[in-house]
Amino acid sequence: MTTLDTGFDSPQHQAALTELYDDFAAVGMTPLWRTREGLMPFSPEPRAVPHLWRWAELHPLAARSADLVPVGRGGERRAIGLGNPGLPGDPYATPTLWAAIQYLAPRENAPEHRHTQSAFRFVLEGDGVWTVVDGDPVAMRRGDLLLTPGWRFHGHQNVSDTPMAWLDGLDIPFVATTDQGFFEFGPEVVRDSSTPERSRNERLWGSAGVTPESAAAAQPASPLMAYRWANTDAALTAQLELEQEGHPGVLGPGHAAVRFSNPTTGGDALTTMRMGMHRLRAGARTRPVRTTASSVWQVFDGTGTVTLSGTDFTLAHGDVFVVPSWTETTLHTDTGLDLFTFSDAPIIERLSLLRTETGAAR
Amino acid sequence: MTTLDTGFDSPQHQAALTELYDDFAAVGMTPLWRTREGLMPFSPEPRAVPHLWRWAELHPLAARSADLVPVGRGGERRAIGLGNPGLPGDPYATPTLWAAIQYLAPRENAPEHRHTQSAFRFVLEGDGVWTVVDGDPVAMRRGDLLLTPGWRFHGHQNVSDTPMAWLDGLDIPFVATTDQGFFEFGPEVVRDSSTPERSRNERLWGSAGVTPESAAAAQPASPLMAYRWANTDAALTAQLELEQEGHPGVLGPGHAAVRFSNPTTGGDALTTMRMGMHRLRAGARTRPVRTTASSVWQVFDGTGTVTLSGTDFTLAHGDVFVVPSWTETTLHTDTGLDLFTFSDAPIIERLSLLRTETGAAR
Amino acid sequence: MTTLDTGFDSPQHQAALTELYDDFAAVGMTPLWRTREGLMPFSPEPRAVPHLWRWAELHPLAARSADLVPVGRGGERRAIGLGNPGLPGDPYATPTLWAAIQYLAPRENAPEHRHTQSAFRFVLEGDGVWTVVDGDPVAMRRGDLLLTPGWRFHGHQNVSDTPMAWLDGLDIPFVATTDQGFFEFGPEVVRDSSTPERSRNERLWGSAGVTPESAAAAQPASPLMAYRWANTDAALTAQLELEQEGHPGVLGPGHAAVRFSNPTTGGDALTTMRMGMHRLRAGARTRPVRTTASSVWQVFDGTGTVTLSGTDFTLAHGDVFVVPSWTETTLHTDTGLDLFTFSDAPIIERLSLLRTETGAAR
Amino acid sequence: MTTLDTGFDSPQHQAALTELYDDFAAVGMTPLWRTREGLMPFSPEPRAVPHLWRWAELHPLAARSADLVPVGRGGERRAIGLGNPGLPGDPYATPTLWAAIQYLAPRENAPEHRHTQSAFRFVLEGDGVWTVVDGDPVAMRRGDLLLTPGWRFHGHQNVSDTPMAWLDGLDIPFVATTDQGFFEFGPEVVRDSSTPERSRNERLWGSAGVTPESAAAAQPASPLMAYRWANTDAALTAQLELEQEGHPGVLGPGHAAVRFSNPTTGGDALTTMRMGMHRLRAGARTRPVRTTASSVWQVFDGTGTVTLSGTDFTLAHGDVFVVPSWTETTLHTDTGLDLFTFSDAPIIERLSLLRTETGAAR
Repeated sequence: MTTLDTGFDSPQHQAALTELYDDFAAVGMTPLWRTREGLMPFSPEPRAVPHLWRWAELHPLAARSADLVPVGRGGERRAIGLGNPGLPGDPYATPTLWAAIQYLAPRENAPEHRHTQSAFRFVLEGDGVWTVVDGDPVAMRRGDLLLTPGWRFHGHQNVSDTPMAWLDGLDIPFVATTDQGFFEFGPEVVRDSSTPERSRNERLWGSAGVTPESAAAAQPASPLMAYRWANTDAALTAQLELEQEGHPGVLGPGHAAVRFSNPTTGGDALTTMRMGMHRLRAGARTRPVRTTASSVWQVFDGTGTVTLSGTDFTLAHGDVFVVPSWTETTLHTDTGLDLFTFSDAPIIERLSLLRTETGAAR
Repeated sequence: MTTLDTGFDSPQHQAALTELYDDFAAVGMTPLWRTREGLMPFSPEPRAVPHLWRWAELHPLAARSADLVPVGRGGERRAIGLGNPGLPGDPYATPTLWAAIQYLAPRENAPEHRHTQSAFRFVLEGDGVWTVVDGDPVAMRRGDLLLTPGWRFHGHQNVSDTPMAWLDGLDIPFVATTDQGFFEFGPEVVRDSSTPERSRNERLWGSAGVTPESAAAAQPASPLMAYRWANTDAALTAQLELEQEGHPGVLGPGHAAVRFSNPTTGGDALTTMRMGMHRLRAGARTRPVRTTASSVWQVFDGTGTVTLSGTDFTLAHGDVFVVPSWTETTLHTDTGLDLFTFSDAPIIERLSLLRTETGAAR
Repeated sequence: MTTLDTGFDSPQHQAALTELYDDFAAVGMTPLWRTREGLMPFSPEPRAVPHLWRWAELHPLAARSADLVPVGRGGERRAIGLGNPGLPGDPYATPTLWAAIQYLAPRENAPEHRHTQSAFRFVLEGDGVWTVVDGDPVAMRRGDLLLTPGWRFHGHQNVSDTPMAWLDGLDIPFVATTDQGFFEFGPEVVRDSSTPERSRNERLWGSAGVTPESAAAAQPASPLMAYRWANTDAALTAQLELEQEGHPGVLGPGHAAVRFSNPTTGGDALTTMRMGMHRLRAGARTRPVRTTASSVWQVFDGTGTVTLSGTDFTLAHGDVFVVPSWTETTLHTDTGLDLFTFSDAPIIERLSLLRTETGAAR
Repeated sequence: MTTLDTGFDSPQHQAALTELYDDFAAVGMTPLWRTREGLMPFSPEPRAVPHLWRWAELHPLAARSADLVPVGRGGERRAIGLGNPGLPGDPYATPTLWAAIQYLAPRENAPEHRHTQSAFRFVLEGDGVWTVVDGDPVAMRRGDLLLTPGWRFHGHQNVSDTPMAWLDGLDIPFVATTDQGFFEFGPEVVRDSSTPERSRNERLWGSAGVTPESAAAAQPASPLMAYRWANTDAALTAQLELEQEGHPGVLGPGHAAVRFSNPTTGGDALTTMRMGMHRLRAGARTRPVRTTASSVWQVFDGTGTVTLSGTDFTLAHGDVFVVPSWTETTLHTDTGLDLFTFSDAPIIERLSLLRTETGAAR
């Protein structure tokens, strides 16, 4: 290329460069050659870091807030987001995922609203709360996964005399970053305060492969809003039993896993988040895996260890940990371990960007 | 256009035409102008006719054959096809569908084979038979729908002391017409003679929306091979209850209906056939409907009347009737009516040919 | 199984069997064990046979009909179907495909109609005819493929002083067998008798990858109705050139092939038929291949030999041959060979029934 | 809910709250009730702002850099990103899109590399550069759109004696935010320095609807890498002519628009970005529209005005402007106007989040 006569390292050249960069800055221009490595790394260099929150810490804090802060219109929810230490300023677990502890005191009601953000609840313990989704009351009980696909009105009510805490997962960061958020208030009290054992969506969609003829077309998100623990547990149990009987089913040795899917498509239950449940048999150790989806996990039952990029985190009931993109992950348990997980895989996969590598067993 | 000088109706012209048509025939040519109306009617003019077979007639005939004809290699199955009177020579219910009564005597075994034809069994009554699909024994009981997607080895065994009869549905005519049939013998005795309460495929796929992570990709046909009556019944009951509670779900007033679907896609459970179950509340009458899919129906429970192109057929337990393409159909019941049905809709729909018209309520 | 005391080969048994079979016949029942081999062969046993028609025979016959039979309402088209000798009684090339020579005399007009059957025209030679599809006049010239997807009004007019003959392909047999045919008359004279160089659909859709923003959604059949020879020829030429330059592109050594596709989906241009063009370099011989799709081929240019299930057929300009399902096919040419082809592959493939085997090079 | 006896506004309550919030902060917890409005606005509140850069300013700055900064390994490209004033610190046009001016001096070579980020080039003016994509040299000329789908090696070389500047579009921000970036160096000099008139991909894929049989399956990104101006121009001209002839085709009155698509799917040419070209007839004014996709536009030809959320920006040759999510946009021209545009619509649309509203004509 043509260059200044004076050479690239002359004072004149440096001065001209400085002036050029100032002129760039004045109109908001940034040279790629000065930023390429940061913008386009050789492999993902997430700002989010592997992190674990102890349920033993989270739960008392959430409980304290119930004594100090009411649930009501405006604030909408007594939900406390878990902010990744690598993403200061934003209360985000990963760049795409929001994870929060929601806490509803006895007899409390969280007002109805709707938003384009997709949401789910995973219930670590307790019962007595109904979430009302587009007028359909859905019981929330231990081990259940409850969906609120985007733009459905929903509120919660606790009809019991005990508080209840659960894990909320939303795509708030993704929707915020891409400016896709719409929000609308609904009634201040849930529109149907009945507490049926089984919601209407479960009555219509709750049996595998039995689809209402009146609604057989594909829908972007699942019309089934509740995935009950008894079913999830049975499926995990079956995989491990089948492994022992010599048949396929498990994801890896001693490692059962299910994905929660949309019965109208067979794909992910929500458009932007993939939810799943994993069970490790006592003594199992997974092969190291890394994937470009980011994820959040919660210990549902048992104890164990997760190793994230070489760092061990011990796991106990309710603990929540986050796995950033491309973080090597190994799970191990001596006692048996049940883990709930959600990730942004549907986003990444649909855009043909998902990469996953599995290492050798150790 | 240029014509013979002698005009179109002259003897010379007729002689020339006759000669032309003879010359056409000699090389296998057929003028469209002499056949257009038959080849391309204004609307479907099926050769198949509406027809009903009485279970009271079919079942004794099937039973008699058990005393006279063994089940074994070569004949393969004691299945007796129901031939539409409009399709003489071919034992086909409709141009695409084969329906048969299959009968297995006590302690009998039907040898394993596989074929590209898709198949299902619908069990009108009884139990004690297991169908073994690719080595996975699947119990067959009253009201159940059991699948054998194309090219899976399968055999049946009756482990009980009573005979059992069921409805077999296959796409034999479609596969025959399009020359897609492959067939292969398997073991003469089912390879797994165990009789588990629940098959392996049910243990892996039997819960709505709970998908094995190890097998989450879309599959052309359903990996779930058994759709149990208890689930089907509950779904139909729920639709009618929801109707009474003022909520959507039913297909029409007093008319519940489900479709059996593939949990990996949400689409039809088999690639070439759509199976469903309908329930009419006592007193219900459906609006007249006609569709270009052809179908076969079996009365599972209750009594009623089906009107096909203006002709009434009374319906009793086990009766089988056939609805050709574009045949106006109305169902009515005073007592309540449960109907199993299967059709070629997946073929027609995927090719963008399906038309359906619903008439006014009467 | 239980049997008659008298044994299976006793006269009593035979008499009972005869009586049973008579009783079966009386209600239209056919035992599978007496028909299984015919209904469910080990591999496809098409009734259709490999066959070739000589253009040198077909064309004069078509021309003679122009002197004797007018084109007009009722007969609709001067099209003469080529009936496979294996399918007597039906003027079908294969069980799913209809192939015909259509002939339009100078200044003739074929009236408008529409039907659910999909159709195309492939022009062996000549020009001067416009086909008017939903009011859009489309020029027909040598080497062009022109589409008439199902249920579009269409008529033809010859504005020249010379007759024109072309190959018509339709899914008439498939639509007839499955009872999906609807037909409707349109104007007796084409509604737009203009003769533009380029049709409106070509102006909107004729450039690869340039999609009208107003019509960007997927459509079952192609909105582009004309695939011009210049483009097809260039694509085939390019594949053979790329082969010589050492780059991928050809289907096999010395064997270029294109498929005509729907620009809104990338899939087949018509819902039920796949059309393509093949070019063999002088001296090329294809590996033997057999597939369960059935197809019809027409020699566009050059000479050669096709071997169908071991029988050689010499190929000359305009010759039409038919390849039934699962018929081993080899092409060879000393001089170079261009072949147009159409098949029912979209039907078979969508139903997951398509099998294709390629043998070793010889 | 239960509250502190002292009431919600007591000093004790405030102190307890402060302590709670401190304790939250210590473990990275953020209450939704204090952040909901920011995280979940009633409608998109993009930080990115409407903004326009003048080509008259951008081009000289890019040219100056050619005298001061070489192109080579490490910096990789002389590309200068346009940073939205609302997104300080990040050189991003919108939260998902990167837009840059790339400048290649006479006889310069930009080394090969590949990355998971998808990229395209749009050529405002000039020629003489070839971009080599996976070894296939693709000429870049005025008005052309050239693709580099993710993970394809690519380099550029200018074989002429004049510099060339063009617009680069990439999904760098989206890939960075979601941590999906992989990057790899290739040869320092493009591996094929030939300068063919037509690239190999154009020879294989450059004709509408003519698909190589050897590569007929769907591919996530377009195998056609070059969309030539002559074709784009002809398509836009045709739409406006068809409008005057009374036929459909235009997007709105006097407003032609095309989308660049992937011939193997009919969908967007790239997985994460939608590219298009718009033409307004002299005197045309579009209806106001707002959509949740964000986009960048460049004036290719003509002059006019864009009104973004009520602010007018005059438009001249080469000017680049950015339209954040949900920004009301109106275009007007007295002289005629050609605009290139790209957006993140494929991302938003696949996740069922895309909303678009069109206002009344003014």
